[in-house]
Amino acid sequence: MAESTDTLGIGLLGSGRMAHVYGPKLNSHPGLRLEYVLNPNRASAERVTAMYGGRASSELEEVLDSPKVDAVVIATPTNTHVDYIAAAAMAGKSIYCEKPLDNTLERVDSCLATLKAYPVPFMLGFNRRFDPDNAAVRKAVANGELGKVNFLMSTSREPAPPPIDYVRASGGYFLDAQIHDIDLLCWIAGERPEKVFSAGSCVFDPDIGAEGDVDLAMTTLMMPSGAIAHINNSRACIYGFDQRLEVFGTEGMLQTLNHHIDPLIRWSGTTTEARAPLKHFFLERYDTSFYNALDEFYGAVTDGRTPSTTEHDGRAALAIALACKSSQRQGVAVAPDY
Amino acid sequence: MAESTDTLGIGLLGSGRMAHVYGPKLNSHPGLRLEYVLNPNRASAERVTAMYGGRASSELEEVLDSPKVDAVVIATPTNTHVDYIAAAAMAGKSIYCEKPLDNTLERVDSCLATLKAYPVPFMLGFNRRFDPDNAAVRKAVANGELGKVNFLMSTSREPAPPPIDYVRASGGYFLDAQIHDIDLLCWIAGERPEKVFSAGSCVFDPDIGAEGDVDLAMTTLMMPSGAIAHINNSRACIYGFDQRLEVFGTEGMLQTLNHHIDPLIRWSGTTTEARAPLKHFFLERYDTSFYNALDEFYGAVTDGRTPSTTEHDGRAALAIALACKSSQRQGVAVAPDY
Amino acid sequence: MAESTDTLGIGLLGSGRMAHVYGPKLNSHPGLRLEYVLNPNRASAERVTAMYGGRASSELEEVLDSPKVDAVVIATPTNTHVDYIAAAAMAGKSIYCEKPLDNTLERVDSCLATLKAYPVPFMLGFNRRFDPDNAAVRKAVANGELGKVNFLMSTSREPAPPPIDYVRASGGYFLDAQIHDIDLLCWIAGERPEKVFSAGSCVFDPDIGAEGDVDLAMTTLMMPSGAIAHINNSRACIYGFDQRLEVFGTEGMLQTLNHHIDPLIRWSGTTTEARAPLKHFFLERYDTSFYNALDEFYGAVTDGRTPSTTEHDGRAALAIALACKSSQRQGVAVAPDY
Amino acid sequence: MAESTDTLGIGLLGSGRMAHVYGPKLNSHPGLRLEYVLNPNRASAERVTAMYGGRASSELEEVLDSPKVDAVVIATPTNTHVDYIAAAAMAGKSIYCEKPLDNTLERVDSCLATLKAYPVPFMLGFNRRFDPDNAAVRKAVANGELGKVNFLMSTSREPAPPPIDYVRASGGYFLDAQIHDIDLLCWIAGERPEKVFSAGSCVFDPDIGAEGDVDLAMTTLMMPSGAIAHINNSRACIYGFDQRLEVFGTEGMLQTLNHHIDPLIRWSGTTTEARAPLKHFFLERYDTSFYNALDEFYGAVTDGRTPSTTEHDGRAALAIALACKSSQRQGVAVAPDY
Repeated sequence: MAESTDTLGIGLLGSGRMAHVYGPKLNSHPGLRLEYVLNPNRASAERVTAMYGGRASSELEEVLDSPKVDAVVIATPTNTHVDYIAAAAMAGKSIYCEKPLDNTLERVDSCLATLKAYPVPFMLGFNRRFDPDNAAVRKAVANGELGKVNFLMSTSREPAPPPIDYVRASGGYFLDAQIHDIDLLCWIAGERPEKVFSAGSCVFDPDIGAEGDVDLAMTTLMMPSGAIAHINNSRACIYGFDQRLEVFGTEGMLQTLNHHIDPLIRWSGTTTEARAPLKHFFLERYDTSFYNALDEFYGAVTDGRTPSTTEHDGRAALAIALACKSSQRQGVAVAPDY
Repeated sequence: MAESTDTLGIGLLGSGRMAHVYGPKLNSHPGLRLEYVLNPNRASAERVTAMYGGRASSELEEVLDSPKVDAVVIATPTNTHVDYIAAAAMAGKSIYCEKPLDNTLERVDSCLATLKAYPVPFMLGFNRRFDPDNAAVRKAVANGELGKVNFLMSTSREPAPPPIDYVRASGGYFLDAQIHDIDLLCWIAGERPEKVFSAGSCVFDPDIGAEGDVDLAMTTLMMPSGAIAHINNSRACIYGFDQRLEVFGTEGMLQTLNHHIDPLIRWSGTTTEARAPLKHFFLERYDTSFYNALDEFYGAVTDGRTPSTTEHDGRAALAIALACKSSQRQGVAVAPDY
Repeated sequence: MAESTDTLGIGLLGSGRMAHVYGPKLNSHPGLRLEYVLNPNRASAERVTAMYGGRASSELEEVLDSPKVDAVVIATPTNTHVDYIAAAAMAGKSIYCEKPLDNTLERVDSCLATLKAYPVPFMLGFNRRFDPDNAAVRKAVANGELGKVNFLMSTSREPAPPPIDYVRASGGYFLDAQIHDIDLLCWIAGERPEKVFSAGSCVFDPDIGAEGDVDLAMTTLMMPSGAIAHINNSRACIYGFDQRLEVFGTEGMLQTLNHHIDPLIRWSGTTTEARAPLKHFFLERYDTSFYNALDEFYGAVTDGRTPSTTEHDGRAALAIALACKSSQRQGVAVAPDY
Repeated sequence: MAESTDTLGIGLLGSGRMAHVYGPKLNSHPGLRLEYVLNPNRASAERVTAMYGGRASSELEEVLDSPKVDAVVIATPTNTHVDYIAAAAMAGKSIYCEKPLDNTLERVDSCLATLKAYPVPFMLGFNRRFDPDNAAVRKAVANGELGKVNFLMSTSREPAPPPIDYVRASGGYFLDAQIHDIDLLCWIAGERPEKVFSAGSCVFDPDIGAEGDVDLAMTTLMMPSGAIAHINNSRACIYGFDQRLEVFGTEGMLQTLNHHIDPLIRWSGTTTEARAPLKHFFLERYDTSFYNALDEFYGAVTDGRTPSTTEHDGRAALAIALACKSSQRQGVAVAPDY
């Protein structure tokens, strides 16, 4: 696809795991072209440009000063998001930022002030909203297919606990992972909880418990309309990456199905009607959602409309996740600090 | 349940495997009471009466002469059915006879003449019609739920080949087993084939092939309305007794499900959403149908109406099965000798 | 079935709705015989004996003094259970009592003291344990099929809210209905929660809210092993009586399926692979469980062993349900008063 | 993707419906580049180039003489395939040809002779082999997962009868449509039938019957190994494009699932566990397979290996389909003229 006024030049900030998620999508999307990959360690950036194109840079100014860069995709460590957003916003670039904005409300509020002062198009990458299955649930609910929604459930179980270094830097299970379920259920419900209650325990990896974190978590979200939502999360799951939604309303119920590594139904001497194991983890299960999220970003920027997932969604999800973390420690229902 | 004018006294003819199928149902049905069990070998009959009650007898006259015997249930070897029917009909007893009437049309026609001359209530035990799942298909089709029916399929796979002595006496796979699928599909379709074509091979047990019989069979039934039906049968099936119907019409399709040995859905490291193996064979899978068939017999006799499965159904199913057997040998479509 | 030393003569206390649930099972169970039906209003008792046999009585003494009465089945209003248990225990009768024992821990403790002083065989009718599907889950878990259990879920949604008079007398949603899920999950998990948290709201019937009760409820049970259990309940459900279990452990997951009003899979112009609506309510869905519960009672009494569901199970379930009710009102996790 | 020695320049012959299927895949495949679109009516070709690029031409010589054209994709009416193949083979171009080669064995044999004389890489577009679900069945069977295969079934039901002009030019239902099922089952079975039997009727569109064609068809394929295969086809299906495979062997059974227009499970007041209607027709259901087929062609040509679907597969499938057509008319089993 030739460069044109219709395409957006992208500066990809970061060259770690997520850069390899976004890289192929930036390449295959007809409206996006990868211009720069940034990493203070230039060699790391070069490993990404070798695979997906663009120029490697170790200098943020070089990227933001380039007239070919229309927008940045921020895929750096969480604690750098707010600073990169500020720099890009002041440079007038459109911004797509991996979730979360930050792990503290203070820095998120500072970020929101910056974005208010420098109002560039901004999208937060809550990619699961852009998964076709999850999006179909939201659409059916929004169309009124379920009547008044009264119960929502999100089940997210990961195949195996992450390395302990990852856990340490993650902000804990609620902020790192459950925040996805929180954002998804609030988006589908069309409302945010007044109070939350969370329980958690450490049953898989004692090192996680030693960090004061949990690897099994369950949350109740109490919504203003009287609806109640349930999230259950596990850091280990022998049959793969279990991802299911259930939404129950006055007119019916909707459920999503898991995704398997092959499409067959098997009958044998030991089991019947059996499906294959699940797709291993989020890179396999949600691959499409990252493309679709970038596509939403592209569409919003080129159409001049607000992206469907904003910094305000990010702040709300963080406030809820922090309330969950606090509730789990105190054993009481907690009101999020919206 | 006390003896009353509402209950039917039953003479059970035969004390083999099927006697043990009918025995418990004769006991638990509130309208039936087991009076006699007949076997020329009285000791064999006594083993049945020891379990289910009634008096053992080795003399047919004793059974048929008893005023306490209102009806007979014939569960003897196939080649004796016609003679027992004749004796019972002449004695004025109501008759429930295990399928088939006989393996030759000549003797079946003689039997029909007898029943015309001595018109007692008569029911043929095509038990699968009385299975709740199969009956639900028939009911939905009869209610017009599918519009005009155009395609029917019956899959019947047995867990393992029968002993070769059984095979030898059975009349062959089409007469012994496929006759069930034939009767079921004609009953559901509400019509009988003008022509049939069958293919067969011996892939499991060479001894069956040595007898000139097949252990894998497939039949096409060409109906007057233009509907076409398909039957597939196998004498071996590693996952159990596979029993499925599919009926496709202008307004939709209906399918039945297999029955498993336990009700759970299992997710493990090797399979997901798996069901347990199937119920082993017809005694487990169709147990209810035998009770329901006896109940239909009881209802028809006491209400004075014709039982829903008649000697004419039996003759038609035999004519079709014989046409299938002939077709498989000749490689041409054959018209049943109705 | 003739009266014998092997059969238990039953005095059925109560002649309301539950008497019509137990009546047919007392009749069809070969080891039980219905001797008496008690109601202070003798005419009411006679309506039951007219259908299922036995003698009607308006006097408890008549029933308990009869040498033909070996055991009582208590199916009276909840607030009379403790008194009937005391009378029957002092009379040396074996006792099967509908759940719950009572709605207060004080009266339950008094009942336990009575049963300690008069140690007759006693069984509490938590019938859902005896549903074949639920029992299969328990058996598989007990066999270690799931490894260490970490998450349990029970979904129970009723087709429509009960009459408000029923609600008023019920002790509230947690004591009336969720107590079933509580007992089931603790029985399957093999442990009882240290703390519980419950949320609830009134979204279906404002009259229920006016009574201070909820018609939507969600509970988290925090188990000593680190396992966490989730219960969700709804007093209304447009697709029928939704009853599902999910148990997740280190080695896999088990789920139960709902029960439909017919066995067919339907494909039409609007939906595909569709099942029929669910069985309407507990009388239809759990009919078998009541028979199986009586069978367990019979087996325990005749074998001289303790029935598998005891008064201590009843006390624990009540303590947990009361903690849930309290938690929902206070917004904090509550430790049950075991 | 820049032009390189790794990419194949494609001359797309034909600009009708199938050109619009292949056009987008030629564009998105990184190894293929669309150079020409040919139609004797140049305006028609231009409508295709306007959408997918390349140059429009009304002259075959122009296309075949171009050094930029490495291969042709033949998507013209069936009766022109053989001539285009001959011209392209003589010009030394690699050839991908839509199925079928032709509707007569005589012309197909002439085509095979041409391809023997001018041995260019040739692939026949039996696209369903390249559908991921069908390919997974073949792979599992080839890996021995089922042991010895004994029964195969292909169900293909189209949403609505085609226009009568299409029917007239199609060669009849067996050659036009069932040939897909024939090729697929023989490919999976790894063998071709010794004899076939087909039944057919006209139940949907009397105009189809007036042409001597059928709109409901059922075929039995009798394999040398003793395996038996079943195909059922319908020109109308109210719930969409029904596409299912079932393969049964000594070690188990495999089935494929239909594809729905959305991923949700729905529970409502009328149905439960319902899926959405099926994808409408082959363009929606098999879209991926066309891309994958072109990818196989690309891989074979660039790797210098024989494409996995050859002209010999095409001849065999035609011989079988002709035998089916003949069998349906004569009512006898027919041996294909291999």
